[in-house]
Amino acid sequence: MDIALLGGTGDIGEGLALRWAYDTNHDVIVGSRDPEKAENKAEEYETELASRGTDVTVEGLGNEDAAARADVVVVAVPAYHLTDTIEAVADHLDDAILVSPAVGMKRDEDGFHYNRPGVGSVTELAAQAAPEGTQVVGAFHNLAAGRLANLDAEIDWDTIVVGDETDPKDTVCELADGIEGLRPLDGGPLSNAAEIEGLTPLLINVARHNDGMHDLGVTFQ
Amino acid sequence: MDIALLGGTGDIGEGLALRWAYDTNHDVIVGSRDPEKAENKAEEYETELASRGTDVTVEGLGNEDAAARADVVVVAVPAYHLTDTIEAVADHLDDAILVSPAVGMKRDEDGFHYNRPGVGSVTELAAQAAPEGTQVVGAFHNLAAGRLANLDAEIDWDTIVVGDETDPKDTVCELADGIEGLRPLDGGPLSNAAEIEGLTPLLINVARHNDGMHDLGVTFQ
Repeated sequence: MDIALLGGTGDIGEGLALRWAYDTNHDVIVGSRDPEKAENKAEEYETELASRGTDVTVEGLGNEDAAARADVVVVAVPAYHLTDTIEAVADHLDDAILVSPAVGMKRDEDGFHYNRPGVGSVTELAAQAAPEGTQVVGAFHNLAAGRLANLDAEIDWDTIVVGDETDPKDTVCELADGIEGLRPLDGGPLSNAAEIEGLTPLLINVARHNDGMHDLGVTFQ
Repeated sequence: MDIALLGGTGDIGEGLALRWAYDTNHDVIVGSRDPEKAENKAEEYETELASRGTDVTVEGLGNEDAAARADVVVVAVPAYHLTDTIEAVADHLDDAILVSPAVGMKRDEDGFHYNRPGVGSVTELAAQAAPEGTQVVGAFHNLAAGRLANLDAEIDWDTIVVGDETDPKDTVCELADGIEGLRPLDGGPLSNAAEIEGLTPLLINVARHNDGMHDLGVTFQ
């Protein structure tokens, strides 16, 4: 499967790109507003993977071209860039599944807090920005970017997947399952996304207040 | 230590009462608006514990008397009874630490959702209702009541503890740590409670949508 990571040059995008390229046979396409930046990052990922004996091609393209090539498009950009990134690639999505991992947060002196958009959640904001008929799935909201991008670091985390249609949700669950140590769980429809997104500031607060804990994820049991 | 569980006749109160009586040497006092109901439930817990070889006294009292006797008062009532329960025992708290595990939820056809009170969180609502100078701690928000109350069921869960003062928070962490399989984590000040409370509807949604998963808690790792 061809997976495009828009904003795949940083944060959660880097980790997902590296893990999918390393753990699975899917083709990873790194997207960026700046095609040259995408290309440089893709090369960097290839070098990192080759150093571990994995010789794969990671392509780097502008966001529009990356989206046009992919079966699954992960919009791995900060919440405040989500809408404009989706609008920029709207004409290039075809039948691709759009995946939103973004979370809105604000910070005060006490800690991080969930900044819930009026529409209900950032995931539903993505669905609203997507062209009519696009299948939108929420996933990968609660993954610590730094640990995900470090292939030496083992993970043992769950990711909750939400969506209003079964097929695209199943596809995203399979993609998640391909990453070693990541377990997808069904969270129901998109309207259940807020509570998933709200878990991310909690993970950061717990990491800040407990010695020896950092780059946290969760397991449901 | 003397622990009173107001509303200790049902839901999360039952589980905490049984686990503390079974796993620790703390004295457990079951509180209820109806002293007779408290007494009956306390006897029921004693019988259950005796059947497992643990001969302890569990006292059952009206909420006011239970609060007056305790070093730590856990207000294990539904969110909509939190304020009136705290107000009813206000004159009986002395220097007791008040612990709030309550979460406000609403349900629609898609799932459960966090019903955040205007003051920020249910835990902060408890702090607002408590008499001036009472030390309020939030904890035990994310424990599945059914599994907690079943002493045959092993648990391996974290509970996030929030509070504005270190000493009462440390005391509650020690109490939590006494329950086998429960790990307390520091969540920072009370103002970080909302994201903890929001995790409870997520646990319910995940249990509803995934075969073989029920009575869930979480582990941070």
